[in-house]
Amino acid sequence: MITNQPSIILVNPQLGENIGMVARAMLNCGLTDLRIVNPRDGWPSDRANSASSGAFEYGVVPTLFNTTTDAVADLHFTYATTARPRVMVKDVYTPHAAMEKTHTQLNDGNKVGILFGAERTGLENIDIAMANAIITVPLNPDFSSLNLAQAVLLVAYEFMIHGDDTPDTQTHTGKTDLANRDMVMQFTDRLIQSLETKDFFKSAERRPTIERSLTNLFYRQNWTNQDVKTLHGILSAFIKD
Amino acid sequence: MITNQPSIILVNPQLGENIGMVARAMLNCGLTDLRIVNPRDGWPSDRANSASSGAFEYGVVPTLFNTTTDAVADLHFTYATTARPRVMVKDVYTPHAAMEKTHTQLNDGNKVGILFGAERTGLENIDIAMANAIITVPLNPDFSSLNLAQAVLLVAYEFMIHGDDTPDTQTHTGKTDLANRDMVMQFTDRLIQSLETKDFFKSAERRPTIERSLTNLFYRQNWTNQDVKTLHGILSAFIKD
Repeated sequence: MITNQPSIILVNPQLGENIGMVARAMLNCGLTDLRIVNPRDGWPSDRANSASSGAFEYGVVPTLFNTTTDAVADLHFTYATTARPRVMVKDVYTPHAAMEKTHTQLNDGNKVGILFGAERTGLENIDIAMANAIITVPLNPDFSSLNLAQAVLLVAYEFMIHGDDTPDTQTHTGKTDLANRDMVMQFTDRLIQSLETKDFFKSAERRPTIERSLTNLFYRQNWTNQDVKTLHGILSAFIKD
Repeated sequence: MITNQPSIILVNPQLGENIGMVARAMLNCGLTDLRIVNPRDGWPSDRANSASSGAFEYGVVPTLFNTTTDAVADLHFTYATTARPRVMVKDVYTPHAAMEKTHTQLNDGNKVGILFGAERTGLENIDIAMANAIITVPLNPDFSSLNLAQAVLLVAYEFMIHGDDTPDTQTHTGKTDLANRDMVMQFTDRLIQSLETKDFFKSAERRPTIERSLTNLFYRQNWTNQDVKTLHGILSAFIKD
């Protein structure tokens, strides 16, 4: 669990379902500090609990506030999320850049919060004015209205993957290991010899080209030990007759 | 709208609401090719329409298929999304790396599809076996089950932001422009002179240090022309008496 993490602040959220889905998205990304300002349908909420898929039991701690001012009082830096350009002077960050900065801020011992507005209306101008900076997700400009939990997810995801050390690509081999080149070579040689007995190569002239194609066809794959065994079995079945 | 884009393939989705939310998340990120394999609750779906926030009217084209095989027939490369490690040999990509590769594949003229399984059970092993590679989102290992639309959103988002040219940070100034340094200097000088008349600096010895602090305090902000006007107004109000 992340101990040094930004707070997610929902300002005047309407539907309990959405609060629950926000909690689920937060915990998917390891975040647990959920601050709820004046929720329309009250709190606690059965609908929130059932939409959360257990997020409140497994770690998300919801805290209720009457005003945004109360909810951010102990924080040192707040971001307001909004898709709409406002007539207001403020630094605008992508989620990626904002969460990169957030990691630095948290490491410096400062507390960071991210404000999300109500489902249909978004944040009020005064809430945006009181924030240090704005986060805007660079979405399809013709269809940019994100569901509340989706907006929280994207920001939480960017926080989580910043500094995540998962390799971009890895080959999952299950219970077996990748075959070494010698095993691949032995199989390919056996295949070529077997094809020779079947008169596959027709002319001696074209043979080097065909051999090279076959070699490339088999050598460029990521075979496992088990794969090569299976290939040998297939070959044995064909040359038996 | 993106013309060269991956197809989103939902295999045996259960709830119409989720299909609608998938469509909304897709269009948020500019994707429009939605392939639906054998949806449990039938198709078309009123619940899907109402959860889509208009995504089907504004661009997402849903196509129905009976089998996964039919749904991927025209594609050249498919990714299976799964959180669970399987006993299966397959390359595993982060969403970021997979969508980077997808851009390359699309630019090469190949069609790419991304498979998502049913809400509770995920993809069947056979669907995963038939894919070229796996996408796994590096989530909180203790709470990694993503809502279907959330999973689609993260992949679609990574596709969209790859190559997006939105600057990481920009200062949104609304209708006014940033003040130039000369305006900031003139205001700061006027303030310092005014403070002098109020006997603010007490000792001549400490004055350079205090002046430098004041200068830094005002110079490091991103004032607009309007801000500087307002500051002059405030100063005038105080020195009037």
